[in-house]
Amino acid sequence: MAELIKVVVDAMGGDYAPQEPVKAAVDAIKERKDISVILAGQEDKIKKELEKYQDYPKDRLQIAPASEVIETAEPPVFAIRKKKDSSIVVGLNLVKRKEADAFVSSGSTGAVLVGGQVLVGRAKGVERPPLAPLIPTMDGVSLLIDCGANVDARPSHLVQFAKMGAIYMEEVVGIKNPRVAIVNNGAEEEKGNALVKETFPLLKQTEGINFIGSIEARDIPAGYADVIVCEAFVGNVILKLYEGLGTALIKKIKEGLMSTARSKIGALLVKPALKETMKSFDATEYGGAPLLGLKGLVVKTHGSAAAVEIKNAIFQCVQFKQQKVNEKIAEHLQPLAAQEDSHEK
Amino acid sequence: MAELIKVVVDAMGGDYAPQEPVKAAVDAIKERKDISVILAGQEDKIKKELEKYQDYPKDRLQIAPASEVIETAEPPVFAIRKKKDSSIVVGLNLVKRKEADAFVSSGSTGAVLVGGQVLVGRAKGVERPPLAPLIPTMDGVSLLIDCGANVDARPSHLVQFAKMGAIYMEEVVGIKNPRVAIVNNGAEEEKGNALVKETFPLLKQTEGINFIGSIEARDIPAGYADVIVCEAFVGNVILKLYEGLGTALIKKIKEGLMSTARSKIGALLVKPALKETMKSFDATEYGGAPLLGLKGLVVKTHGSAAAVEIKNAIFQCVQFKQQKVNEKIAEHLQPLAAQEDSHEK
Repeated sequence: MAELIKVVVDAMGGDYAPQEPVKAAVDAIKERKDISVILAGQEDKIKKELEKYQDYPKDRLQIAPASEVIETAEPPVFAIRKKKDSSIVVGLNLVKRKEADAFVSSGSTGAVLVGGQVLVGRAKGVERPPLAPLIPTMDGVSLLIDCGANVDARPSHLVQFAKMGAIYMEEVVGIKNPRVAIVNNGAEEEKGNALVKETFPLLKQTEGINFIGSIEARDIPAGYADVIVCEAFVGNVILKLYEGLGTALIKKIKEGLMSTARSKIGALLVKPALKETMKSFDATEYGGAPLLGLKGLVVKTHGSAAAVEIKNAIFQCVQFKQQKVNEKIAEHLQPLAAQEDSHEK
Repeated sequence: MAELIKVVVDAMGGDYAPQEPVKAAVDAIKERKDISVILAGQEDKIKKELEKYQDYPKDRLQIAPASEVIETAEPPVFAIRKKKDSSIVVGLNLVKRKEADAFVSSGSTGAVLVGGQVLVGRAKGVERPPLAPLIPTMDGVSLLIDCGANVDARPSHLVQFAKMGAIYMEEVVGIKNPRVAIVNNGAEEEKGNALVKETFPLLKQTEGINFIGSIEARDIPAGYADVIVCEAFVGNVILKLYEGLGTALIKKIKEGLMSTARSKIGALLVKPALKETMKSFDATEYGGAPLLGLKGLVVKTHGSAAAVEIKNAIFQCVQFKQQKVNEKIAEHLQPLAAQEDSHEK
């Protein structure tokens, strides 16, 4: 039998906790035999929630008691330091102590990012762990790397993002020889801000990635690249504009459909097909965003995540572990770190 | 009678030149008596195009002959220096020599930006002239400032962008006390990259603008602010993602509408209403983007601009001139420049 992958799920994180995380855990272990889940959170609440379910493999579900809850609005660094018995800190510590392989949370993004770096720790050679969500495109998904909390990256960070992103897309998402591009304000090589201009030639030299050059923001939704490399401030703008523009357009379309008697009748007929279409372009539909480059795996799911998104994130963790992604990342980043060390001397 | 405003139109610029620029010129002077247009470009082509029109006030239309054409792909600085007899250089020189009030072009963005700065020149006190397109929102338009060619701005540039943008929205677009916000990766004041963190307190102190704080990219399409201040690289990402995501979503929706027999019938009924809706959210529908802070006005319209967009840009120029926007910008920026000078000493 295959190795059992242990995933900690934050039972207290997100808008629909503990219901959705608990449901996700139960569904995940029912669906796949190679997973064991640890639910981190307030024991009484989790147990009460689990009472809803009868028929699941109880031997592959544990509870890691954690009395505190980190709220979304709390300053992350302070929360991680102060709330030692929170589900996020307890869960991340399980990964740190190798008692679990991965941690999945819909809770405070800031706390998960800070906690991931501080508690689980960066893997050797990794300068900065990027947060890398999958965003929908015309013909699939692309990995947007980095959307994390640490802005103003250096060129060497971006090179590492490119490598980690390529490994993730190849091994976890299953895209062969993924196309890597850097976000730029023009397609020509001479375009760019200081960071991009400095990073571009480094990416061209980087072995083992399929670097295709610059990508303009216009071409991101068309799916011109599989790995979209950018600094976190820019990544944040892209990710949030995706959400905001999608929401605004859907609202506009609904208004449009209700604007005339004729369109109202048509609206009834197109509604189901349109709903399906919009779903395929909804950034929130694509499971979690991994925080890459740590000693374990940490996956952040949306605050509004339903059980299915959390379950998909759990499955991502299994793929991640089975494909030995961390080992592969370590292998590819080591030489760079060594190079940098020798440069600094 | 009101003062006659003279606008130079680049007859050779854009995908549909000279047809659309010439039509725009003719339509503009037919529609308003306070405008005179100079068409810059190859005389024979312009004259041939003008033969299509009979009934227009010929006394308010001149031709400024220019034998050369700057192509979109040419390196801007080189093109401006080399092609002295191009429609862009000839047109901008007319503004420089005060023989015209404004220049409108659908040609090479780079050449228009470089030429505007080099030939027309920055107004006194302006550190960097921003390119500021209007983008559609749920309930109108917002000014995205800066989307220009010069990236990596300094905080003092962003403060000037805020002031110029506020004046433009108030005087030209007619929004009273426009809300000014800075693009950030979070709503809290402590968020931001180095540039935003340094700029935020300066904007708070800036008198005469209605600064409402940070805006996340998610909230831009909802229309939370009238003036969206950002550095040009970020502005470029926002503008182009707007275009790209809009195009992708419309394509997806069309696919969705054609996916079932039921939806196909509905599609026929909703099509006119939907078309109208999408048009209201199309970034290309909102006339030109002014290059602010110059000694004259330079407006860049889309490469794919039809006559109606160019005509609207011509009307913008009139409003700009009549509201004495340049004088107001000079008035508001002067004190800052003086301050900076004294700091530097």
